[in-house]
Amino acid sequence: MEKHWANPDLHLDLNGPRLGASLEDALRSAVRDGRLVPGTRLPASRVLAADLGIARNTVADAYSQLAAEGWLTAKTGAGTWVAGQGPETAPALPGPAPAPPAGVPSPRYDMRSGAGDLSAFPRREWLAAARKALSAVADRALDYPDPRGLPQLREALAGYVARTRGVSTDPGRIVVCAGFAHALALLSHVLRARGATTMAVEVYGHEAHRRIPESNGLRVVALPVDRGGVVADVLTSSFAGALPEGAARGGAGTVGGGAGTVGGGAGTVGGGAGVAAGRAAGWADAVLLTPAHQFPLGVTLQPERRRALVAWAARSGALLIEDDYDGEFRYDRHPVGAMQGLAPDHVVYAGTASKSLAPGLRLGWLAVPRRLAGDVTAAAEIAGGCPDVLSQLTLAEFIASGGYDRQVRQARLACRRRRDRMIAALRQAAPGVRVTGIAAGLHALVELPPGMREDEAVARAARHGLAVQALGAFYRGDRGGHLADRHRPALVVGYARPAGHAFTTALARLCAALADRGGPAD
Amino acid sequence: MEKHWANPDLHLDLNGPRLGASLEDALRSAVRDGRLVPGTRLPASRVLAADLGIARNTVADAYSQLAAEGWLTAKTGAGTWVAGQGPETAPALPGPAPAPPAGVPSPRYDMRSGAGDLSAFPRREWLAAARKALSAVADRALDYPDPRGLPQLREALAGYVARTRGVSTDPGRIVVCAGFAHALALLSHVLRARGATTMAVEVYGHEAHRRIPESNGLRVVALPVDRGGVVADVLTSSFAGALPEGAARGGAGTVGGGAGTVGGGAGTVGGGAGVAAGRAAGWADAVLLTPAHQFPLGVTLQPERRRALVAWAARSGALLIEDDYDGEFRYDRHPVGAMQGLAPDHVVYAGTASKSLAPGLRLGWLAVPRRLAGDVTAAAEIAGGCPDVLSQLTLAEFIASGGYDRQVRQARLACRRRRDRMIAALRQAAPGVRVTGIAAGLHALVELPPGMREDEAVARAARHGLAVQALGAFYRGDRGGHLADRHRPALVVGYARPAGHAFTTALARLCAALADRGGPAD
Repeated sequence: MEKHWANPDLHLDLNGPRLGASLEDALRSAVRDGRLVPGTRLPASRVLAADLGIARNTVADAYSQLAAEGWLTAKTGAGTWVAGQGPETAPALPGPAPAPPAGVPSPRYDMRSGAGDLSAFPRREWLAAARKALSAVADRALDYPDPRGLPQLREALAGYVARTRGVSTDPGRIVVCAGFAHALALLSHVLRARGATTMAVEVYGHEAHRRIPESNGLRVVALPVDRGGVVADVLTSSFAGALPEGAARGGAGTVGGGAGTVGGGAGTVGGGAGVAAGRAAGWADAVLLTPAHQFPLGVTLQPERRRALVAWAARSGALLIEDDYDGEFRYDRHPVGAMQGLAPDHVVYAGTASKSLAPGLRLGWLAVPRRLAGDVTAAAEIAGGCPDVLSQLTLAEFIASGGYDRQVRQARLACRRRRDRMIAALRQAAPGVRVTGIAAGLHALVELPPGMREDEAVARAARHGLAVQALGAFYRGDRGGHLADRHRPALVVGYARPAGHAFTTALARLCAALADRGGPAD
Repeated sequence: MEKHWANPDLHLDLNGPRLGASLEDALRSAVRDGRLVPGTRLPASRVLAADLGIARNTVADAYSQLAAEGWLTAKTGAGTWVAGQGPETAPALPGPAPAPPAGVPSPRYDMRSGAGDLSAFPRREWLAAARKALSAVADRALDYPDPRGLPQLREALAGYVARTRGVSTDPGRIVVCAGFAHALALLSHVLRARGATTMAVEVYGHEAHRRIPESNGLRVVALPVDRGGVVADVLTSSFAGALPEGAARGGAGTVGGGAGTVGGGAGTVGGGAGVAAGRAAGWADAVLLTPAHQFPLGVTLQPERRRALVAWAARSGALLIEDDYDGEFRYDRHPVGAMQGLAPDHVVYAGTASKSLAPGLRLGWLAVPRRLAGDVTAAAEIAGGCPDVLSQLTLAEFIASGGYDRQVRQARLACRRRRDRMIAALRQAAPGVRVTGIAAGLHALVELPPGMREDEAVARAARHGLAVQALGAFYRGDRGGHLADRHRPALVVGYARPAGHAFTTALARLCAALADRGGPAD
């Protein structure tokens, strides 16, 4: 929680001979005494100057001096904070920021997953598209938007996902949303309202994507993931009714038996069709999955598992939710088409502009089965939060003009080059690591050298000034399962994130952290 | 629901001697046969041309010809639809669009409430602010935003609402949201999660603002509204425990006894503090109200009722939600300060840019009590839908530069002039009507001449090409209450909505509809 200046208990004594020095002293002692705690945001210099009745430059100079001394942290355009805890810019979604070990400064380099190189966001082109879009539309487009999204954007998106991802849809089945978390909240609400009780997720993934269905009243169970992608036999086999109970339980070795994972056992063999309440373990009304490039393991769902899942969904009436979060970023062969194309009536396809452009745009899209289009639209209307019309018009213009495709091509090429550099550098510096999940995406899994623990690796990277995430931070099964089906210790490395000028150094820090077993080099 | 072109059942026979004529014929007969139903959106001419392998001009010419013939409707920049049903641009929120009587064409003039003059949106200034904001921020601002909103916007808003509305807050208690519907969804979720069961609303208001808490599991009860604003005696008196049950029930005459209104009776006298589940009628955990300018009646909540409400909230732990939807639009005397200023720990203040700029921006803000800031932020994170960073940065820049204040001043002046013109014109043309709720806002209540029913007045306006709303469309009590405490028949007239060049004509149509008792003049 941000603490703000409006603190009636804090009095600054400004009676010294020089106002600026007095202010510096007052702030310094307030921090030292704990009256201003780390993370507290200070008012803008003009605001504090007005409050105190002194010149703005006096305040600005005091801030600069204290920042130079390490008491404060200033970020251009963002503000000034009491140091000791970074400014509150760590994204809440999708991944938790790694807590730096005590005594270690905030990392200067960031290879956490979740976003690409934000310095590559095409600011000029985006503003030009906004200007063009806004100058062309009728005034009425500025009214409350259609909760499905503007028609021109839905038309552009329907064409885009069909062309690039093999999604089978039309503008009437597209719902524009504010990123995947918003989409998942809407879908969870719809599922619950239709009587669903359970959503299965991959045992590795974002914790937020577990909390969202849970907060909408769904029970969340976890499915294991192996090299062929998610293992959903417990759903797809048992539901067929063809296997005896013991056979269904045969999956328990990989599935894990504890609470929070899909266990076999009583009630596993479900019958009937449609979404029903109160089913026992072994049933799910919906499955959330990342078929093209599992997050964060990076594996691709095998074709036969895709077919088994869609066949199960068609038989059972369950819904598959395909989070195609980085589907456009495939490097070494043709893109893996969206699973949705196999069964448009049983799969919700979800894409966003978060990886191709920037998460801050909060633009995402769903291609939903026809039977759900009305419910999802109603949920969007009730929940609110659909993107503003200017963002929607700008994206429609950006897609129509070819700017979006160009941006994706450039970002993909840049990511691929970084990936190749990272693999080569790690091979040389740290032969004991193994890099996987590299066929696609903006991140890779870096399996640690034998004997190195994840928390140790994260701490070592932090000592080198680099933020990375442990694979374990994305494990969302139960504790027993954690030990049973946990992957090898690894880091999730978002090689796409550093700005272009910082990548070389960030990569060197990563290599140093994983190679230098003797302790920090700095 | 939009029907789209991707219809496998629709085949166009293009074998005639002239391609254009053949396409025209094919489309015409598809519409005539019902294969293309009214409201169906046609593909962009370049898309259809590519699909059919013919020249784009051929398609464009066919569309033009069919639009001239009345088969199709084309809107520049929006697309082409099969006529007979307007393009899908009617806003879903906040008010329902009036259904035009059968045989009556879509109205050309729009005086529905819900938005101001969208042609006055400062497109150039907004884009300039966007450019300035985007060029100034660090790349990291483009990452997933803080679910409370960006710090610079929360700082700007905290200052703005304090300065203009007397709201007592600080940036740490501001939550940026995507308009009031989004805000109400977040608050409803928080209330429900904290054990609340019941939200009271004013008996007149937006139907959507009833459905949102209901869809979050809250029971919604309605409080009557009279000239002094909402009548909440059943809450504020009974909770004091000072009145015998009969006295509390004494309010039943105005409160209405049926389901869906706050009835007196058993359990009315609640005791204890805090939010409790399972209370009987006469209790509410939260009250949603529009104190400055009741929507749609336009009355202002009396000072003594404000005081009684905040005292009750302080005693009981209930939450007041102040929807200050048009608080900046006060004309004849000083603005009525926000109720929040009386009790910042018990009132959530809610404002938006929907009236001052445009609803399509989807920008709103809450000033929440400190004890709720964490929960509302968590709800925003789980629900998604927070505004994109560019919109937030642009609004922050627009406020900081003074552009927002300038826009509000201009809009307020324009609205006031229109209001005065409307009152004068109606006085002359229709002396039997009475215009109320005129001290503020973008709409007024036009009480009908004796003997004229609301549906009759709406139909008459529609025959004059004017869309207006019946007061009854905003009644959300039960049917019995409808008869008991229904206001006099009236129209809700959004005089701020027509574009500048259309206002004179729209006003003339309104006068004609209400004056000309003999039937349509056209």
